[in-house]
Amino acid sequence: MIFPVAEFEGRAVRLQARMAAAGVDALLLTTAPDVFYLTGFLTRFWESPARPWFVVLPAQGAPVAVIPGIGAELMRQTWVRDIRTWTAPDLRDDGVTLLADALAECVPETGSVGLPMGHETHLRMPLADYERLRGVLGDRSIVDATDVVQRVREVKSEAEIARIREICAVAGGAFDRVPEIASAGAGLDVVFRDFQRLLLEGGADWVPYLAGGAGPGGYGDVISPASERPLQAGDVLMLDTGAVKAGYFCDFDRNYSVGPPDDDTRRAQAVLYEATEAGLSAARPGATAADLNHAMDGVLSRAGGAGEGGRLGHGLGLSLTEWPSLIPDDHTPLREGMVLTLEPGLQIAPGRMMVHEENIVIREGGAELLSPRAPVELPVLEV
Amino acid sequence: MIFPVAEFEGRAVRLQARMAAAGVDALLLTTAPDVFYLTGFLTRFWESPARPWFVVLPAQGAPVAVIPGIGAELMRQTWVRDIRTWTAPDLRDDGVTLLADALAECVPETGSVGLPMGHETHLRMPLADYERLRGVLGDRSIVDATDVVQRVREVKSEAEIARIREICAVAGGAFDRVPEIASAGAGLDVVFRDFQRLLLEGGADWVPYLAGGAGPGGYGDVISPASERPLQAGDVLMLDTGAVKAGYFCDFDRNYSVGPPDDDTRRAQAVLYEATEAGLSAARPGATAADLNHAMDGVLSRAGGAGEGGRLGHGLGLSLTEWPSLIPDDHTPLREGMVLTLEPGLQIAPGRMMVHEENIVIREGGAELLSPRAPVELPVLEV
Repeated sequence: MIFPVAEFEGRAVRLQARMAAAGVDALLLTTAPDVFYLTGFLTRFWESPARPWFVVLPAQGAPVAVIPGIGAELMRQTWVRDIRTWTAPDLRDDGVTLLADALAECVPETGSVGLPMGHETHLRMPLADYERLRGVLGDRSIVDATDVVQRVREVKSEAEIARIREICAVAGGAFDRVPEIASAGAGLDVVFRDFQRLLLEGGADWVPYLAGGAGPGGYGDVISPASERPLQAGDVLMLDTGAVKAGYFCDFDRNYSVGPPDDDTRRAQAVLYEATEAGLSAARPGATAADLNHAMDGVLSRAGGAGEGGRLGHGLGLSLTEWPSLIPDDHTPLREGMVLTLEPGLQIAPGRMMVHEENIVIREGGAELLSPRAPVELPVLEV
Repeated sequence: MIFPVAEFEGRAVRLQARMAAAGVDALLLTTAPDVFYLTGFLTRFWESPARPWFVVLPAQGAPVAVIPGIGAELMRQTWVRDIRTWTAPDLRDDGVTLLADALAECVPETGSVGLPMGHETHLRMPLADYERLRGVLGDRSIVDATDVVQRVREVKSEAEIARIREICAVAGGAFDRVPEIASAGAGLDVVFRDFQRLLLEGGADWVPYLAGGAGPGGYGDVISPASERPLQAGDVLMLDTGAVKAGYFCDFDRNYSVGPPDDDTRRAQAVLYEATEAGLSAARPGATAADLNHAMDGVLSRAGGAGEGGRLGHGLGLSLTEWPSLIPDDHTPLREGMVLTLEPGLQIAPGRMMVHEENIVIREGGAELLSPRAPVELPVLEV
């Protein structure tokens, strides 16, 4: 198992405390990170959208897994003992009756089932089957349990923090080796492939996310796949990865200058470095997500280039991105153990931007870096 | 762009023909494969669950993208001209009003919006926002459009088939090189990392899926992550990958014997090879998904070892797995251009199985292999 059973029991108890406060009789989880968080069930098989997977957490006691038979062997290796399976896909009843029975056992006839349905969530089952489930549940109501899950999951245990630190170190090592794979003339698509190879060589289990960009003095966006365009002198290259080890993500980026950077690029680099410093200084228990946004945005605005994207960082852990959002409207209080990204972006000119990103954990005394801090000066790649 | 505009226009027209037949005034798409299929919008940013993305296809004309501003630059590189953005995440209105307006423009007040809600689908937006959308849409109904999307997407164009053949060739090359990275003593986790590296070196853009197993004379399941257990003489090693190039998946596996296979393993290999042959022979236009299941299951049952998993293959393309399911209950007719996996599995003993998998396209005259056919005899790895 990924963690000792006590880690999972603690998670269940913390969720159940929130459930009790919210008046929820059972929690229904359907997504890979939620299911992994509660059970330790870790597989890349979620990549297949063919089958739904359900975990029910009653008000007391251990979770119940209601899953396709193909996952039984793996689920038996977790701490979950009550595993109910069906041969999926079943075109007539794809686990709905089995799930309804499991819920009916632990939810009174006028009780309520909690389901995450707020921001940053989705229901990973067919909508038509969800409507069928609602019908079978009769007078039991299904209520929003986003807060139940998010307030618990957002505070990471030391075991979780250690995992994130570990994958951050893997990515840091790969970023250090970028000069080996990237120089003028190298196609961005080849750099992307080679960078993923470096992450795997360094110990990543897999690389769910890689984005980036390259262009003269900056790049157009931060979510595009790689083109075949070769790197050129004067380009800024950015690579942004969400690599995974033992189920936990890192999410940070690094910038490089192809040949010596010009003055504009040096200035942008300095502003972003300073904005990140402002974020690091502001990150402490009691501050809010919005406070971190303001701290970084202040530096960017004084430099005349706050991005339009709005979000200057986010939570991190079992997904590439988690709540809260470092935006002006998100007043989620920061608590010890929350793992966040700081991600200031600078709009240099139309179609030309730069972004920095670091990963931190909130400690009693302030921010502790999980990613190795980016260098003050842009590393220079060979021309 | 991934394809010429005419490819996407053809897709829109084919969807609109199905929409007209189903009485649907607009189609709402929210998932990565559906959005990519219609627009060509390709990004790994879907890995972040923070933001919803919407594409609306009216009864006539081109699609409308309603997306977070962070994706505007990339969407402008597709054939979509009507791009409406908001600064996401917006905790008060995360695109719901913008989407409702777009739908109201093309759906009469008592008309209907089609949304995939059947098997193998999910709605990639917060459920609470979906309920809000339903409220705003008033008397417009939201109806199941699974059939509209699946009957169109399941028949691949020659351009799509070429992409799948290309990534199948990449994976085939990586499988050929497995003896370089796997032999007795190698930890399965290291083999997994190295195999992903081989895929990238061979030209895969990324490797969303890798599973496998290794054990004496077979493995316990086919969805587990790799353990650190070293390969041992007598093990059967299986690697199963969904690698991606230009948005299209392959999905097939290969088995290897660590040292010479014993008689049981040779026999299992022969049965699985024969079952795949039976699937290949049965795969032609007019047969059904169930027919393919029966053809392969007949061979497995005669050998006394049909697996309990039920599904002996599935569709393939923009997702690791697509409909139909090669199960007894799925009577979807096979049509020319459908790309499928044949995936017979043999239960050798409790906790010990073997699976084969190939990728094919249905042609007028029968099955055409897209994956290089697995060898008749198990390749032997060094002890």
